[in-house]
Amino acid sequence: MLDSLFKPKSAAVIGASSKELSIGNRVIKNLIDFGFKGDIYPINPKADEIRGLKAYKSIMECPDNIDVVHMVIPAKFVPQAMEDCGKKGVKNVIINSGGFSEIGPEGEAIEKDFLATADQYGIRVLGPNCQGIINTDPDIRAYCNFTFTMPDPGYISIVALSGGVAEVIHQAFSQMGVGTRIYASNGNACDVTIPDIIDYLGEDDGTRVIVTYVEGLRDADTFMRVATKVAAKKPILAMKAGRTMEGAKAAASHTGGLAKEDIATDLIFKKAGILSFRDEGELIQAAAGFATQPIPRGNRVGIITNTGGPAVIATDIMVAAGLTLPPLSEKTRQLLAGTLYPEASVHNPIDVLATGTADHYRACMDAMMADDDFDCVFINFVTPFFVDNESIARQIVKVSQQQKKPIICNLMTDRRQWTQVVKILQDGGVPCFALPGEAARAMAALVHYNDIRTREIGEVQTFDDIDKARGAEIMAAARKDGKSNLSAAEVYGILKAYNIPTAGWQMATDAETAEKAASQIGYPVVIKADAASILHKSDVGGVAVNLPDAAAVREAVAKMQQAFSDDDDLRFFVQQYLPDGLELIMGAKAEEGLGHAVMFGIGGVFVEIMKDVVFNLTPVTSGEARQMLASIKGAPLLEGARGKKGVDQDKLVEIIQRLSQLLIDLPAIREMDLNPLMAFEDRVFVVDARISI
Amino acid sequence: MLDSLFKPKSAAVIGASSKELSIGNRVIKNLIDFGFKGDIYPINPKADEIRGLKAYKSIMECPDNIDVVHMVIPAKFVPQAMEDCGKKGVKNVIINSGGFSEIGPEGEAIEKDFLATADQYGIRVLGPNCQGIINTDPDIRAYCNFTFTMPDPGYISIVALSGGVAEVIHQAFSQMGVGTRIYASNGNACDVTIPDIIDYLGEDDGTRVIVTYVEGLRDADTFMRVATKVAAKKPILAMKAGRTMEGAKAAASHTGGLAKEDIATDLIFKKAGILSFRDEGELIQAAAGFATQPIPRGNRVGIITNTGGPAVIATDIMVAAGLTLPPLSEKTRQLLAGTLYPEASVHNPIDVLATGTADHYRACMDAMMADDDFDCVFINFVTPFFVDNESIARQIVKVSQQQKKPIICNLMTDRRQWTQVVKILQDGGVPCFALPGEAARAMAALVHYNDIRTREIGEVQTFDDIDKARGAEIMAAARKDGKSNLSAAEVYGILKAYNIPTAGWQMATDAETAEKAASQIGYPVVIKADAASILHKSDVGGVAVNLPDAAAVREAVAKMQQAFSDDDDLRFFVQQYLPDGLELIMGAKAEEGLGHAVMFGIGGVFVEIMKDVVFNLTPVTSGEARQMLASIKGAPLLEGARGKKGVDQDKLVEIIQRLSQLLIDLPAIREMDLNPLMAFEDRVFVVDARISI
Repeated sequence: MLDSLFKPKSAAVIGASSKELSIGNRVIKNLIDFGFKGDIYPINPKADEIRGLKAYKSIMECPDNIDVVHMVIPAKFVPQAMEDCGKKGVKNVIINSGGFSEIGPEGEAIEKDFLATADQYGIRVLGPNCQGIINTDPDIRAYCNFTFTMPDPGYISIVALSGGVAEVIHQAFSQMGVGTRIYASNGNACDVTIPDIIDYLGEDDGTRVIVTYVEGLRDADTFMRVATKVAAKKPILAMKAGRTMEGAKAAASHTGGLAKEDIATDLIFKKAGILSFRDEGELIQAAAGFATQPIPRGNRVGIITNTGGPAVIATDIMVAAGLTLPPLSEKTRQLLAGTLYPEASVHNPIDVLATGTADHYRACMDAMMADDDFDCVFINFVTPFFVDNESIARQIVKVSQQQKKPIICNLMTDRRQWTQVVKILQDGGVPCFALPGEAARAMAALVHYNDIRTREIGEVQTFDDIDKARGAEIMAAARKDGKSNLSAAEVYGILKAYNIPTAGWQMATDAETAEKAASQIGYPVVIKADAASILHKSDVGGVAVNLPDAAAVREAVAKMQQAFSDDDDLRFFVQQYLPDGLELIMGAKAEEGLGHAVMFGIGGVFVEIMKDVVFNLTPVTSGEARQMLASIKGAPLLEGARGKKGVDQDKLVEIIQRLSQLLIDLPAIREMDLNPLMAFEDRVFVVDARISI
Repeated sequence: MLDSLFKPKSAAVIGASSKELSIGNRVIKNLIDFGFKGDIYPINPKADEIRGLKAYKSIMECPDNIDVVHMVIPAKFVPQAMEDCGKKGVKNVIINSGGFSEIGPEGEAIEKDFLATADQYGIRVLGPNCQGIINTDPDIRAYCNFTFTMPDPGYISIVALSGGVAEVIHQAFSQMGVGTRIYASNGNACDVTIPDIIDYLGEDDGTRVIVTYVEGLRDADTFMRVATKVAAKKPILAMKAGRTMEGAKAAASHTGGLAKEDIATDLIFKKAGILSFRDEGELIQAAAGFATQPIPRGNRVGIITNTGGPAVIATDIMVAAGLTLPPLSEKTRQLLAGTLYPEASVHNPIDVLATGTADHYRACMDAMMADDDFDCVFINFVTPFFVDNESIARQIVKVSQQQKKPIICNLMTDRRQWTQVVKILQDGGVPCFALPGEAARAMAALVHYNDIRTREIGEVQTFDDIDKARGAEIMAAARKDGKSNLSAAEVYGILKAYNIPTAGWQMATDAETAEKAASQIGYPVVIKADAASILHKSDVGGVAVNLPDAAAVREAVAKMQQAFSDDDDLRFFVQQYLPDGLELIMGAKAEEGLGHAVMFGIGGVFVEIMKDVVFNLTPVTSGEARQMLASIKGAPLLEGARGKKGVDQDKLVEIIQRLSQLLIDLPAIREMDLNPLMAFEDRVFVVDARISI
């Protein structure tokens, strides 16, 4: 439990300073200015008081039971200070100073040193090289942080390694008049990790929505486990940056990590049920919506507006995001037609006109709240000088506070003139945006979270017919031989053990055995040269397709024998030839600490030109596999399109799950390709496959 | 010239009112509060003074030479008031009142009535049903408008029919501390149109960037002509809403237009060189950048930051938008290494660290301004309490004011605390955003405008070998026959007249003539049944491909004769069979008042599943045709991919232009399909074509 860190009753600052522009002074100023409810102990061997508070010579002289100690001292002094804290019984240490693992081996050694001490005494450490925490709980008011934005109390908690982005998000909430609950930026995260904090926030009743920013995940499996648990309870909104190679490089240069392209983080977000954002502005705006509004039960939005164009913009964005605008029922239309001005447009969007009054807005909101055809209400509200805008604002607040269905408001005004209107809405907890697009995207995020929350995950299917032992045995033999690429026989052997259907095949050593194999498999066949040296067979004349008879088989083998005469281990892979199916591709790639990412796509131009593939992490559930099929751009081809019949999607869902099981059982697999699979209306066969370990 | 409208020396208000919450009062208040430099004449038959100004009984009693008259009176009184204005010699009338064409035929009649009078007297009319204009020019200060946002003087002009969105944009500039030059919202636009205003703003030296919002274009050809001219001089930033069918419906309900899906507006924006936005926030932020910064000469950005994560976000966005981050030259690195802190990251992005000083920022900016490897500079600036942030702001302003290369700044701060820093940057004309993503997209827009400004448009190629007369003759004959779909012979005849290469073909009436035709064309051939009743030939057994010899031809003809025995006019289209080319598609669709939209794409799944097609309006230039080829997702296939050679792109560019010429010469064409074309390394043939008129 991190309660003593996030709800401290006392805070000491080792390195407290009298110099105004120092962090050791600022932390004390922040604690005082924010109205910290606990005791503050500045520690400085030379000063008697700092910012009017009694200063202590050392931590040992302070009163006991200190919950949080800030360390704002050079790195080399931290281990001794940690030892002192241990002896004193300090519960948590926030190390604001830098000079640790982020600067290289020397700093890393210091980090290990103090961490061992902390471990020994049971001290939890936030940081080092971090900003610290803020808790706006009125009973706590802890600003254990050296930044400068003083948040209002609220329901959004922010957590990130990167203080820069966390602070930008924090500032944005403050600017919007939206409060914050807990803020935590943990820098090097040597002890208290992001998953630890998310876990804590999940249990914190005051936190309704969690916002995080990452540039990659260090403890991916823990993150996934914790995030999955918490996201089922309350929305987690996340953004990952470092998406481009240049962005990843920029991230590496300030985190000391490696620049790499990273798909795993997105897959983790998706699997855990995290709402993922590509734009920090959208994330901020969505969080403001989640902070005070209930989650909609569906995607049907009612729009009320007193101006035309902004409703058009909002409609475009919400519809493009998958929301629908149901028509008003005849009953509702008649009801409103009696209340609104005759010129008002009583459709969805309802245009109450610029002259529309608070009563008009209220009637529309009440109608949409009562009507089961609507899941949420979007309000466009420009403040004409000739109506009582404060009354309109008050009515919006009243309906919002019923908490029946979410309300998002696009308030179009001069905020310096209409301060009272802004204040009524903000104090009333109505999420309020200055642009229709921003408001519409926030609404779409609420709906999207409902989609995630209610998604069909399905089960991880188990298969009784799998011969795990056989798969493991083949793998063990290949590893013993020091192979990095398995032979065709090994690959097909493993597929057979997992009952993944393959096109009928046999190995042959010469023309005679090839001909025999072909006649057993049935014509037409394809023949592929197989030798350790041959990887891309078709590029070097190692593939002959659609061989109709024995003569063709003999001829093909003869040609290959000539082409690969240098290869002592040359053999021939004879396989059933399957034309006219839909060419598919599956694959897998090991993701460090995370099992494997399983890939699915349609072959040919879809994968090669369009990069139209989709990934999911093992273990893949039935719902996830089905979702994979549905989410590629070429999905209509699976259903049947262009005069062709659809393919056996149930079988594909099954194969993806068998592949997932295979990868979990055989973690040594580095990369795997089933390329192509040929899919038909009632059958699917793997035609070629590779496994590297 | 609209000078007397936008730079009035006097303004009268017919319908001036003593009631505070009336538009007739508000307009006078706005003129006074904004410090109008001209004379104000309230006109009210019953009042002696309004807001302290002498009121006149009628317009006839006012002094002469009135530049602008507001009409805030019921619609039915407008025609007489217009007559009075005419007699009085009024130059411009802004009709704020509604009740005209937007409400139906009755209002439309009144609109026609007063417009005839205005025409007669040479009065220009803005509106009716409009907000009016604002000009912030210090010598003018005209707030001829009833809205409530008082802008600072600036360089951005805003024009839109829709007052709602124009006002939202206007408010956003005001909120950001960015000024406005001219604001115009013209409602029903019965006389002064959007193109009129854009034309005027193009000539207005005080306007550096023009912002507009549309839901569709009424006078598309004029808009295109004016916008093309103006966009070559200064950036026009535009947003179109009503993109989804639901959005178009919402637009129709407040404009009285028809709900329709509309690709033409996007094509006009593109062809005219307008910078098009899908999000009003992005448009607003980009405009703020254009207002004070020079246009970059290329896409190479240097980033300076004092915090890590926000630079990662900005990098991602700019790289995704096509910008590049060149490395620092060795010379620059060494220079800066001597100036910055040793821990600073001297790469691109340069991280000067949170402790970085004004001198550090200045050294980095100077280095990037001097270095020819950079076209623009992006600054991330968080305001730590322990550095002199005002000095940093002042240095950024100084470098920005050199106007060498554009600077965009992401200022991450609490704007309520760091007011002086914000003020220095705003007053210094540095475009300043609160989020890295917003700032990065503004920078990308500047670069994108440079791309547009310097794009290779090429010429509209003229072809000497075209037989215009023959094309017109075929068309005339078909029209005379009352045909809506041309026969194959007509279609191919027109293509031949325009020298668009088709696969060799002949018409045949029976098996014998078909066999003869095939032997002349050369085997293999394809045969298609041709009769007025047969439109989708392959669906009904009307196509036989890859016929290798005379026997196959006879058999195919026999089958079709049987299948279409009801068709008296059955004939056979015999054509060279061209396998193994790349299947392409071209097409055209008449766009009202705009000529045709020409379409290009790759056939098969690309068009059918991926909808991977691109459009351009006639006349298509060589540069535009080349751009069409480059901009489809399947473009790699044109270059050669998947083991296949590329196709003859020069020939495709030529065919697109021949098609464009054909469409211009034959405007009666409603829709046209060249589907498929077969393209090879050195040849392209149209294989099937349809024309409807």
